[in-house]
Amino acid sequence: MSEQAERAETFLRGLQDRICAGVEQIDGRGRFVEDAWVREGGGGGRTRVLTDGDVFEQAGVNFSYTQGKSLPPAATARKPELTGASYVAASVSLVLHPRNPHVPTTHANVRYFEANKPDMEPVWWFGGGFDLTPFYPHDEDVRHWHTVANDLCTPFGSDVYSRYKKWCDEYFYLKHRDETRGVGGLFYDDLNEGGFERCFAFTQAVGEGFLNAYLPIVERRKAMPYGEREREFQLYRRGRYVEFNLVYDRGTLFGLQSGGRTESILMSLPPRVRFEYAYEPEAGSAEAQLAAYLKPRDWV
Amino acid sequence: MSEQAERAETFLRGLQDRICAGVEQIDGRGRFVEDAWVREGGGGGRTRVLTDGDVFEQAGVNFSYTQGKSLPPAATARKPELTGASYVAASVSLVLHPRNPHVPTTHANVRYFEANKPDMEPVWWFGGGFDLTPFYPHDEDVRHWHTVANDLCTPFGSDVYSRYKKWCDEYFYLKHRDETRGVGGLFYDDLNEGGFERCFAFTQAVGEGFLNAYLPIVERRKAMPYGEREREFQLYRRGRYVEFNLVYDRGTLFGLQSGGRTESILMSLPPRVRFEYAYEPEAGSAEAQLAAYLKPRDWV
Repeated sequence: MSEQAERAETFLRGLQDRICAGVEQIDGRGRFVEDAWVREGGGGGRTRVLTDGDVFEQAGVNFSYTQGKSLPPAATARKPELTGASYVAASVSLVLHPRNPHVPTTHANVRYFEANKPDMEPVWWFGGGFDLTPFYPHDEDVRHWHTVANDLCTPFGSDVYSRYKKWCDEYFYLKHRDETRGVGGLFYDDLNEGGFERCFAFTQAVGEGFLNAYLPIVERRKAMPYGEREREFQLYRRGRYVEFNLVYDRGTLFGLQSGGRTESILMSLPPRVRFEYAYEPEAGSAEAQLAAYLKPRDWV
Repeated sequence: MSEQAERAETFLRGLQDRICAGVEQIDGRGRFVEDAWVREGGGGGRTRVLTDGDVFEQAGVNFSYTQGKSLPPAATARKPELTGASYVAASVSLVLHPRNPHVPTTHANVRYFEANKPDMEPVWWFGGGFDLTPFYPHDEDVRHWHTVANDLCTPFGSDVYSRYKKWCDEYFYLKHRDETRGVGGLFYDDLNEGGFERCFAFTQAVGEGFLNAYLPIVERRKAMPYGEREREFQLYRRGRYVEFNLVYDRGTLFGLQSGGRTESILMSLPPRVRFEYAYEPEAGSAEAQLAAYLKPRDWV
C-alpha cells in the first residue's frame, strides 16, 4: 500500500470512530454494534449499526477497505486507461434515520481511490459529500446546513461550494418524480486537482464537518412533539429514499452488481417504510410545503 | 390499429375487469378505485387499486395501452431492425399484497406488442406469466400453483411449461441475495411461434388461468391465525420484493426511464415494508424454512 493510501485509510478509520461517538452521544441511549468482515480478494470493513435509539431509529456507519487485482468494468468504463490496474479503495459511508419526523434523515460519504499499473504513475482521487433529507423542513436548519458546507469549502477556493452544491443537487435527483432527494449539500468525485495534500485536507474538512452541520439540527428538533400523522408522512417519504437508493444511486448499484457485502450496502435503507398509490398532501398542509424544498435553491 | 391489436386490446380490457371482480369477490369488503389516464403521445390506461380490504392490504391491477411513433431505444437495442418503427403495446399487470402473512403475494402480467414500418410486414409478439411469493410456504399451495400452470400450458406443447417455468426462475432472481423472489410460475416473452391465433390463445390461457391458480390458495389461507411475529416477517420479506422491483425488474426500470406514469408503475410496491440489517431467522424456525423454497425446484 502507498503511504498516501495508508494516510487516507487511517483518517477514515478514525473518522468512523468520531462520527459514531458523536451519534451515540446525541442519541443518549443507542449503541453501535460492529460487524467486522473480510472481503474475499482483499480488504474488509467494519459495519456499525445502531438500532432503536432514543433519537435514531436506525443509524449505520460503514468503513470499508478494498484491495483488488483488477479494476471492475464500472470503473474502467469511465477511465479506460486504467484497464488492468490494481486498486485500493477506502471509504466511510453513513445514513442516519431518526425516529422523530422533525429531524431530517442524512447521508454522508468520503472515499479515497488509488489505481496502480506497472510503468505508470499511481492514479488517485478523492470523493465525498453530505446531504440532508428533511420531512418537515425548517429554513433555519437548511441555512445552517449549507452555511457549514460553504464555510468548510471556502479555504479551498471561492467557487468550491457552489460547484459541489450544484453537483449534489444534480446527483440526488429522482427523474421519475422530478424532485431532489432532499435539500442537498455537497457532492464531489474524481478530485485530484492541486495535489494530494490539498485534496486530502479538503476531504478531511468534509468528513469532520459533517457532525458540525448535522448535530445542531438534531439538537433543535429531537424533542419536538409529533403524532401519527407526522409519522405516517415520514414513512411515506422514506419510500422516496428507497426509490433513489435502489434505482439511481451509483454506489449502491455498483456495490450490489460487483459482489459487495449486501447487508453493508443496504443498511442505508430505512427500517420502516410506507408506499401509497397516488398520495397527494392536502393543499396548504404542512406536508404540502415539502415539495418547494425539493427543487434546487440558494441557501447561503 | 390492426385487427390483431384490437383483439388483443379487447381481451386485455376484459381480463382486467374479470380479475378485479374475482379479487373483490374473495376479499369481500375491498373495492377497486379506478384512475383512467391519458398518455401524452398516444394511449392511456386504467389503473385500479384496492386498499385496506379484508384479505388484501393493497391490490393493484393496471391496464395500459400505448401508441408510439418511434420505438424507444430499450426496445430497438434488442431488435435493431425495428429502429424507427411505430408501435402499439397493451398490457395487464397486477400485484396483490395480502394482509395475512400465510397468503402469498402474487404478480401477473400479460402483454401484446406490435411494430409497424412502411414496406415491412407488421411484427408482433406476446409476453406474460405469473409468479407466487409466499412468506410461509405450504407445499400443497405451491404444487397447486404449478399444476395449474402446467395444465394450461400442456395443450400448447409438452415442453412449454418446463421452458417457461425455468424462464420464470431465471427472471425473478435476486443476484445480490442469491435467491429467487418466490416459488416461480411462468414467464415468457417475444412469443410469435406458430402464428397469431396460437400465441393469442396461449396468452388468453395464461391470463384467464391466473385466478384459478391463485384464488384456491387464498381461500385456504386467508383465515389462518397469525400474530406480530408473522406480520414482522412478512414486512421484512416484502423488502426483498422492493429490492427486486427497483433493482432488477426490466418492466419497472424501463417504465421509469421512458417517462411512464410513475404511480401506475410503482403501485407494485408493498404498502408497508421493513428493512433490517443482517437479519437471520432462528435456525429451525418457521421463518427459516422459507430459504429452501427460494431455489428453483420441480413442483409438478
